[in-house]
Amino acid sequence: MIETVTVIGHGRVGSAVAARLAERGVELRDEGGEVVLLCVPDSAISDVSRGLTPGHAWIGHVSGATPLSALAPHTRRFSLHPLQTFTRSRGPEQLDGAFAAVSGESREAIAVARTLAQTLGLQPFELADDRRALYHAGAAVASNYLVTLYRIASGLLEEAGAPPEALVPLMRRTIENGFELTGPIARGDWTTVDAHLAAIRAARPEVEPVYRVLAEATRP
Amino acid sequence: MIETVTVIGHGRVGSAVAARLAERGVELRDEGGEVVLLCVPDSAISDVSRGLTPGHAWIGHVSGATPLSALAPHTRRFSLHPLQTFTRSRGPEQLDGAFAAVSGESREAIAVARTLAQTLGLQPFELADDRRALYHAGAAVASNYLVTLYRIASGLLEEAGAPPEALVPLMRRTIENGFELTGPIARGDWTTVDAHLAAIRAARPEVEPVYRVLAEATRP
Repeated sequence: MIETVTVIGHGRVGSAVAARLAERGVELRDEGGEVVLLCVPDSAISDVSRGLTPGHAWIGHVSGATPLSALAPHTRRFSLHPLQTFTRSRGPEQLDGAFAAVSGESREAIAVARTLAQTLGLQPFELADDRRALYHAGAAVASNYLVTLYRIASGLLEEAGAPPEALVPLMRRTIENGFELTGPIARGDWTTVDAHLAAIRAARPEVEPVYRVLAEATRP
Repeated sequence: MIETVTVIGHGRVGSAVAARLAERGVELRDEGGEVVLLCVPDSAISDVSRGLTPGHAWIGHVSGATPLSALAPHTRRFSLHPLQTFTRSRGPEQLDGAFAAVSGESREAIAVARTLAQTLGLQPFELADDRRALYHAGAAVASNYLVTLYRIASGLLEEAGAPPEALVPLMRRTIENGFELTGPIARGDWTTVDAHLAAIRAARPEVEPVYRVLAEATRP
């Protein structure tokens, strides 16, 4: 059981984390918590960490790609990355149901990170410190590039005079159907793929490289 | 009100459509319906259409990218494309909440297509016949390439020793949050983007072109 936590940084993640800890009866301390959790930008982790006096507290960060070594000189350290996208318009409930990658260099460190994840309502899984960048690249592909796909697809629908919001039920169902591939590439219908490319070249030529590289990646 | 429909083709879309029409009290006829709806592969539309004797029936197809001219020699024609991905493991309820692109060459044709869409539980919007390929390219980007993103991201997580299913709550929330961009590119954090690229090059070099072209498309 973790009874006191110092959360440093109150951006999207820090705010949701602090609110959830308060909900769960964990005491938030401005300094001196059993766990000090750095919810600061990746580029600031090392500086903030070096500014903290080593002691008996556990120091953790919530970055996806940053290695544990960024928490030097501390050795009682871990990382806990909530695999979720956060918005300021939601509260701590946005942690519910999300997974969390936890890394540490000892059984004790992993145990602290797991306990904290569970307190936050996250489902922890262990991640090797040297696989964090690869893992985080996957997370970025899944979430950030999903935004990019929607923007590109919306642009094509707008150009065609169709309402972009019509894409939302389609995208939701694609996830609900377990990412089962349908459509022209699944059917081996290259005539339709060529018709797409011709239409894209005429109306939105800047989209062609993305369409092509993804068609290639989708091909069985 | 449409009282009788002949559905030709009983694949994913044809099955769901026929079941929904039956639910709504529309009589399904093997031939001679007021509306003949071709739910056949795109490449078969023209042949099937030429095999039907022109008469008073309305002929429609449910293809996204195919122009109305594929329904020649018929002139009482329309198209109705449900903007949804269909699976055989669901029934007619998969039409609920989806949009449908309707095209026709007369007010009467559009009215028939709209009525049929509403009977099916779809939300129709009108689409110009010469914009169908562009519109359908957008649909393919949104749905088919979403599958590709998930496959790529899953591969990276697996390689990192993380559970791919952890991506699902992240992807759902990305949609629920109205496709708000978060993550390294949104923060202008190119150090993390470079760390992703280095990790991808080492572990899954075939993913690098996709990552790069999407990073470029995501950049503000």
